[in-house]
This record gives sequence, structure tokens and C-alpha cells, in this order.
Amino acid sequence: MKKHNFSAGPSILPQEVFKEAAAAVLNFNNSGLSILEISHRSKDFIAVMEQAKSLTLELLGLENKGYQVLFLQGGASMQFVMLAQNLLESKAAYLNTGTWANNAIKEARFFGEVIEVASSKDKNYNYIPKNFEIPADADYFHCTSNNTIFGTQIKEFPKTEIPLVCDMSSDIFSRNIDFSQFSLIYAGAQKNMGPAGTTLVILKESILNKVSRAIPNILNYNSHIAKESMYNTPAVFSVYVSMLNLKWLKAKGGIAAIEKVNNEKAALLYSEIDRNSLFEGFVSRLDDRSTMNATFNLTDETYKEPFETLLKEAGISGLNGHRSVGGYRASMYNALPIESVKLLVEVMQDLENQN
Amino acid sequence: MKKHNFSAGPSILPQEVFKEAAAAVLNFNNSGLSILEISHRSKDFIAVMEQAKSLTLELLGLENKGYQVLFLQGGASMQFVMLAQNLLESKAAYLNTGTWANNAIKEARFFGEVIEVASSKDKNYNYIPKNFEIPADADYFHCTSNNTIFGTQIKEFPKTEIPLVCDMSSDIFSRNIDFSQFSLIYAGAQKNMGPAGTTLVILKESILNKVSRAIPNILNYNSHIAKESMYNTPAVFSVYVSMLNLKWLKAKGGIAAIEKVNNEKAALLYSEIDRNSLFEGFVSRLDDRSTMNATFNLTDETYKEPFETLLKEAGISGLNGHRSVGGYRASMYNALPIESVKLLVEVMQDLENQN
Repeated sequence: MKKHNFSAGPSILPQEVFKEAAAAVLNFNNSGLSILEISHRSKDFIAVMEQAKSLTLELLGLENKGYQVLFLQGGASMQFVMLAQNLLESKAAYLNTGTWANNAIKEARFFGEVIEVASSKDKNYNYIPKNFEIPADADYFHCTSNNTIFGTQIKEFPKTEIPLVCDMSSDIFSRNIDFSQFSLIYAGAQKNMGPAGTTLVILKESILNKVSRAIPNILNYNSHIAKESMYNTPAVFSVYVSMLNLKWLKAKGGIAAIEKVNNEKAALLYSEIDRNSLFEGFVSRLDDRSTMNATFNLTDETYKEPFETLLKEAGISGLNGHRSVGGYRASMYNALPIESVKLLVEVMQDLENQN
Repeated sequence: MKKHNFSAGPSILPQEVFKEAAAAVLNFNNSGLSILEISHRSKDFIAVMEQAKSLTLELLGLENKGYQVLFLQGGASMQFVMLAQNLLESKAAYLNTGTWANNAIKEARFFGEVIEVASSKDKNYNYIPKNFEIPADADYFHCTSNNTIFGTQIKEFPKTEIPLVCDMSSDIFSRNIDFSQFSLIYAGAQKNMGPAGTTLVILKESILNKVSRAIPNILNYNSHIAKESMYNTPAVFSVYVSMLNLKWLKAKGGIAAIEKVNNEKAALLYSEIDRNSLFEGFVSRLDDRSTMNATFNLTDETYKEPFETLLKEAGISGLNGHRSVGGYRASMYNALPIESVKLLVEVMQDLENQN
């Protein structure tokens, strides 16, 4: 049976990418060798890394704008440390929109003062705070563009003169924004980019070398820039599959084209959540709703079992909400076909009709 | 044409493992989903992680001896930092056997005093120093079991009362030693364990919590132990393929069986290096020669082109030496069949016969 994968991450990638990746595990580039057994310093893999970097800049519209692209290890969680260690000299400003922002704040506190400019903790993070002030003397401002757990998404980023740093793990490559407003963008691969194991970092070199502390080499962005993401062995396969996925996205028409489909998918599901009396959305302000992760609950818990039976029969997987929110979470990343969303909506309607 | 892959790393893994990994990229455990799109918190992946851990302990003979097994990200290079940050309170003792030991020393110096107990730098690391003294008041002693670049290998580890910490990136799972003499063992996956992207750490919890510094969560071993290597999203595919490879090793008869083959392969190649007048080994003391990485040079550089033509014709790849040594390096990891070594020896003999 065909599966409809709404997993929050690691998550669905295009079937074409799975096919090409599987073939490369057996025979990469017709070399007679697996992608898993070649040196990261081989000509063929250096070409993969170069292509992954140039596709990243091209898709985000950041070519020739002074950005460095790195593929590191450790996930966004390692970036919580690295960015603070490399950028935080005295104090930094953070927007608290939930779990990931909180974790970023906790790690930053090991390196300096953190000013929480605003928080939506008062309502279990079911909205995005707005109209806050960013101290002009902070070293940088940090925010999380999309909160995977609560299903909120920043639609407009604050204007500030200080460097803007953004964790885009769960919505990078999903919508067109002016990416050049950011001094540092980072993203764990395992949503819209590729398999878990690699982490994308895009940064302007001009923000570096402003802290007085000594930084161990592996945690210093300069090391990775100098060695073009080969300071140590990169996660070869994850970078390769990310490259395949970015190539797929480019062939689909890039971010503008996928954004249109993503908006259609989100509109379809949210209108059913709002229409269907058995469901209610988690996010309180409708304009803060994420196009990537729709969070919703049953209005009556007695429908839990019949709903989950229907989901299972339809081959829908990965719909359980995070334990801190409960209910359901439909993650609709780039590779999720609109047909999967249509099917989910049908299941929600079936539940209503049966009761 | 069949390739004979002598790459130093990422390096050869068994063909059976490549086949199973490729199949799982298309359909993992008959779930209808790719191994690349499933949640790391899914029942199926938790089982993979558990199996990888228990196979590790079983193969190394470390079951029920108080060890924790972690699969982290960042490579051995990240461990250079983490181990010092977690263990180094005042001073630590390091044995300098080359590039990787040097890098470990450099990172440790960010956290405290490093005492280099001995070094083979005087002879470009072509031997393993012996009969050095380890200060009894150091926080730990660190060594690199096998030097991939220079082709040296520690055959007997020093006795000491302080915790023994060892980077086994390039020879773990290749030979039987008493692994219980170590308090912390770590290894980047990409030689004898699996594809690049995951790093094995095996440690005794009793050595932790003895430093006074505050450690960011992602760099603190306690975080990863508490969350059973799921503190953040692990490198799912790399852990999965490592598990497949460890399962393969167990089916082959475990370390004892593979060590026998590894010794045969090494004996075959070294005896040809020593017999053939066109070649000479790089390592000066024969008992320090690595069974994993054999380093050698031509005695006369005029044979370089004809030798490399013969290698190419035979389908032998990955034989170039590291730039700091030059010449050739034959890496003979667990998965390299003895037939590949026999073929290399034939090529060396052909070169001699032709000249």
C-alpha cells in the first residue's frame, strides 16, 4: 500500500531522489564504487559538494552576495553552540517561540548574556510575538523561522541594524523570502533538504572574528570556511542526497514554484480544520500558522480511536503531535504530494460523516 | 570492471551491506517508507540504534562491564574537543604519533595543560614511541591506536592507573585487544564501521562529572547518555549501515575471525614490500607496522608512471599516499577481500619483472 508520510522529520523526500540515492549506494557515477566507500577528497565527491553549495546559493537567490555555504555535522543543536561561541561577545537578543528557540537560548547562555526580546510561552507558544524591540547594542538577533512542534511560522522578519541569525531547519527552501536580510542562516537537513546527518550553514564572513575568546578549531567557522567544508570528513551520503534533492527542486521550478504548491496544500488542510466541527487548530493567530506543520486537535477525544483507524486504513503515517502539544501534526514539506493532503482531508470528512 | 578499493577512508564496506542499504533506501523493513524518511523516534529506528549498540558491546567483549555506547555526529575531530571538555580539569597526558594525535592535542590545549609524554615527530612519525612515563596525576592518558597517514599501529598499550582514552578511528573492530583497559574509546565510522556521518563513543560513566567547567548541552556526554544517543536527531542512515556492517562482522565470526584474515592480508603485502627491490616500507620499526594501512614508496621514482598504469589496468583504486608521506598507502580494512591484496602483490611483481 502507498504510504502518505506526514512525519515531522526526518521526513519525506522525492521518490526520484530515493531511486537515485539507492542506485548510487550500489554504483556511484558509474565508477564501480559505492557512494559510501569513496574518499571525500575524490574528484567526484568534491564536485558533489560544489554542486550542493552552488544550488543552495542559486535557489535562495544569494549568488554573488558574499555568503559562504558550509555543510557541517551535529544538527541545528550544534549550531546553537557554534553560533554563540563564534558571535556572542557580550550580549545577544533572542526571540522565544518555543522548544528550539529555548534550546538555542540555553546554549547561548554558556557564552554571554541573552536578552529574550519576547516570548509566547504564556500561551504554550501558540502564536508568534510581534512589536518587540531589539537592542541596537546586541551582538546579533536570533529567531527560529518555523516552529515544527507548535506549528507557528514567522511571516515577516524584524528590521534591525544588528546581524540577523535564523534557524530555518524546518522551512528553508519552502518559500521565497529575502534571504539576504540574514547574516547567518542554518538548518538541519532532515526536513526540506536531505537525510539527517548534515547541517547547512550560510553566513557572511564579515560577522566573524569579533569575539575575544579562543575557539576550538572544529567549532570555529573559520576552519570550515578555510577548508571548504572538508576540515574533517563530511557526512558524504547526506550531502550527496541533499544535492540530489536541491537539483530536484531546481528542476521543479525552484522555490517560487514549490511555494505555490506548499500554499495550496496548507490552504486545503487549514480550511478543513476550520470547517470541520470535529477539529480545531492549535495556533491562535491564523496569520502565524505554519505552511509546513499544521497542528490540530480533535474537539472531542472520543473520536480519537475511529480517527486513527481511518488514518491507518488510508496509509497515512507520521501524524501524531509532539507530546508538548498533543493532538495531530501534519508536516507538509516540499516533497509531500498534494494528493496526500487531499486524502487526509477526505479522512477528516469521513470521520465527520460517520459521526 | 571490478574495482579493488584501497581507500584510506571513507572506505570499502562489504558488498552485502551495500545491497541491503540500497534496498532500505527504497523500502525499509517492508514499511513502504525509505530509511531516509522515517522518524528517528520510530519504533523501527529505535530498534536499529539498540542493535548497533548491543552489537558493538558484544563484538568488543564489553557486555556488562559498565560501558555506555553512543552514536554521535562530528567525527573524531569533534571528540578531540568533547573528551577534553568533559575530562580535562588540570592536565592531560598525550602520546604524539602523528597528524591525528596532534589535532587532538591542539584541541585539548583549549581546556587545560597538555603533557606530551613522547613523540615520533623526529622521524616524521615512522615509529611508535615506547618506554615513556605517564604522570600519575594527569586526568587521563590519550593515544591514537592506529595512524592512518603514517601506517603505524600501537601493538601494546601502556599500563596506567589513570583513565586510558583512545582514538580507534582506523582500526576498531579489526583486532582483538582487551578493550576493557580503556575508559573511553572513540572512532569516526568511515573505516571499519560504516559510512561517514556517525561517530562511535564508548565510555565508562565513572570518568564523567569530574571537571568544574560548565559544558554546553550538545557537547556534554551526559546529555547523550541520558537521551540514549537521541539528544538530537542522529545520523539515521549512517547508524543503520554501521549496524548492518556490525551484523556482517558477527556473522563472519566476529573480530577473532576477521583479525586472522587481516593478519594474512598484511603479511602478504608487507613481505612483498620487503622482498621486491623496487619498493621500501615507510615505517622504520617493523613491529610498529599497521595491519590496516601499509605505507610504502618506490625506491626509484622513474617507475612511478609504469606502476600507476599497471594499478589502473588492474582496477586498483585509492592507493595514493597522504601528501605528508608521499608514495603509496594500501588500506586493508575488514571488508577488503584478500584477493585484492593478492592482485596488488601481482602488480608489484609485474612491475619488477618488466624492469
